[in-house]
Amino acid sequence: MTVSKEEFTPPSIPPFDADAADAARDRQAELTKPPGSLGRLEDLAVALAGLAGDPRPQLSNPTVVVAAADHGVVDRGVSAYPKSVTRAMLRNFAAGGAAVSAIGEVVGAETLVVDAGVDGPPVEVDGSIGIVDERIGSGTADLAAGPAMSRADAVASLSAGVRTARTRLSEAGIAALGEMGIGNTTVAAALTAALSGADPDRVTGPGTGVDEETRAHKVAVVERALATNGLADGGEPDVGSDVDPVEVLRRVGGYEVGFLAGVAIGCAADRTPVVVDGVVSGAAALVADAVTADVRPYLLPSHVGSEPGHAVQLDVLDLEPLFDHGLRLGEGSGAALALATYRAACRTHDRMATFAEVGIER
Amino acid sequence: MTVSKEEFTPPSIPPFDADAADAARDRQAELTKPPGSLGRLEDLAVALAGLAGDPRPQLSNPTVVVAAADHGVVDRGVSAYPKSVTRAMLRNFAAGGAAVSAIGEVVGAETLVVDAGVDGPPVEVDGSIGIVDERIGSGTADLAAGPAMSRADAVASLSAGVRTARTRLSEAGIAALGEMGIGNTTVAAALTAALSGADPDRVTGPGTGVDEETRAHKVAVVERALATNGLADGGEPDVGSDVDPVEVLRRVGGYEVGFLAGVAIGCAADRTPVVVDGVVSGAAALVADAVTADVRPYLLPSHVGSEPGHAVQLDVLDLEPLFDHGLRLGEGSGAALALATYRAACRTHDRMATFAEVGIER
Repeated sequence: MTVSKEEFTPPSIPPFDADAADAARDRQAELTKPPGSLGRLEDLAVALAGLAGDPRPQLSNPTVVVAAADHGVVDRGVSAYPKSVTRAMLRNFAAGGAAVSAIGEVVGAETLVVDAGVDGPPVEVDGSIGIVDERIGSGTADLAAGPAMSRADAVASLSAGVRTARTRLSEAGIAALGEMGIGNTTVAAALTAALSGADPDRVTGPGTGVDEETRAHKVAVVERALATNGLADGGEPDVGSDVDPVEVLRRVGGYEVGFLAGVAIGCAADRTPVVVDGVVSGAAALVADAVTADVRPYLLPSHVGSEPGHAVQLDVLDLEPLFDHGLRLGEGSGAALALATYRAACRTHDRMATFAEVGIER
Repeated sequence: MTVSKEEFTPPSIPPFDADAADAARDRQAELTKPPGSLGRLEDLAVALAGLAGDPRPQLSNPTVVVAAADHGVVDRGVSAYPKSVTRAMLRNFAAGGAAVSAIGEVVGAETLVVDAGVDGPPVEVDGSIGIVDERIGSGTADLAAGPAMSRADAVASLSAGVRTARTRLSEAGIAALGEMGIGNTTVAAALTAALSGADPDRVTGPGTGVDEETRAHKVAVVERALATNGLADGGEPDVGSDVDPVEVLRRVGGYEVGFLAGVAIGCAADRTPVVVDGVVSGAAALVADAVTADVRPYLLPSHVGSEPGHAVQLDVLDLEPLFDHGLRLGEGSGAALALATYRAACRTHDRMATFAEVGIER
């Protein structure tokens, strides 16, 4: 069989295991607590059982995948920071000095740092933590002037994510999606508008903290990107068109977004649930969901952030956030923190004594 | 100096250290993230700095204090479970088989299990985790027939909590309040009504899961307890009276509630913040706050639970919950889970690199 570099074929994703979920629900009723008293933690444990196909899912080796890439659109002045910050932060992740590094330590999660296409040569690191080289290119082209990348590169970014999930994450019981890329909230806005049909103004936020004037400029850039790339109809996002999601990724996406969409699909293929973080990883989740609806059950919520497009994404994906701390950092910071909740749900489910074991009659 | 067994004198509580908080705020501005992008985590780190009196608070040795006791009011049929379950669950905590045990493991917290007055003789345990004996008595009297305890016992329960905090928690950078006691949501409702002035019907919930008929009975029991103990005026809670909080505790409280109120005060005296859990630990927080308003800054929120009195307590104490997972278990389960958030706030604050360290110009 010849695999075209121009086509992405997602791996087969197993369905939710209702028998495992039912067995988990039965176990919940036996644990030493009033029925229902752990609230949403009980629902999460049952859902994770159905995803893992295991009545007592372990969530071993939780891992935050942090993928970084650069974006040509930054040259249009959409960010408060220059492209070089992506590279500096990639080194910071590798050295353990970033927010997601610290949060990962608290929740007992490993961090897998990936260069998906940072501007310039591969990043050299002296620290003990390596950077996985899955570079698709040296930053994308300006999506407001034409397609951000080639069709082959869009496919390659998805495939790299799938491959990474199925090799490096094969022992992870749960994964969290994180990213870094100066300019990528503009990319996320374009993708969200194109895939959800939402108005660009509604899904474009201040990102790293630009003022309202720059945010309005970002909206104009997003509108132009959609129009230039045939993704708008009379100025409105053309969600009803027959443009396929890989093509949307090619035209207004980014390497790290394609990579993370691939990670989500690859994890789902191995029954590994994936925690979505902020507006950029949310855009990756939208892409994954558009590529194959089978991934949907494996996409889990973390927080709702202050970027306005995030709530739109969560609504499309039917994800109910666990908390709202006004985060707008990305990196997987919110998803990493949510791992504590998922681990607590599974640990209580697995470790608690039953009423019979402690001799309480009901 | 003679210390009366009838009077409780709280230890001196240091004020919030504004200089440490200012220094923490300055540090936040140097860390490798857009200013404000960690949202509430930044505010929490600054607050914890002010409480600890340390610009980089460590939150070492986080500890969940789980205090258990029994309640005479259970004989009135206010719970779905018999008193004996308190004893069985105390053994379960000691053996590590309860929900809070599992959540504590996930968030890296120790659990300190305290018998504050379980019905019957002291609980013997074979497991590796001991039970601290701070028994005030063998369960309280029926608060709907008269005072729940003597004045000396109310003072003793507060003093035991202060002493435990200042000895066994002296190395803890943060503590969480947990409890167990069949019938204690009825006690919490009576205390909350008496100390907040809220209507008993508004603050009395299903607890472990009684039906609406039994809940209505609980409301009647709470109303009777307030009237019998001179804490109601024309049927309404008499919050404006000059009844002191130790007296409220004596009349409609419980040993574990007094103990946890003492723990909160003792922790605050040592600059240790205290995370409030559900409606019973919330009642303890109300008692502590009424005893000495100096404790207020040290009381930190965790979740808002499904027991209706909890939201009333959080409103009185001006605590904004971090999450709402519909928990109604107690044990400190929600407070333990919230420790992950507090630890994440302080770990990012302490461990993240600064812009200068990674060579990013701003």
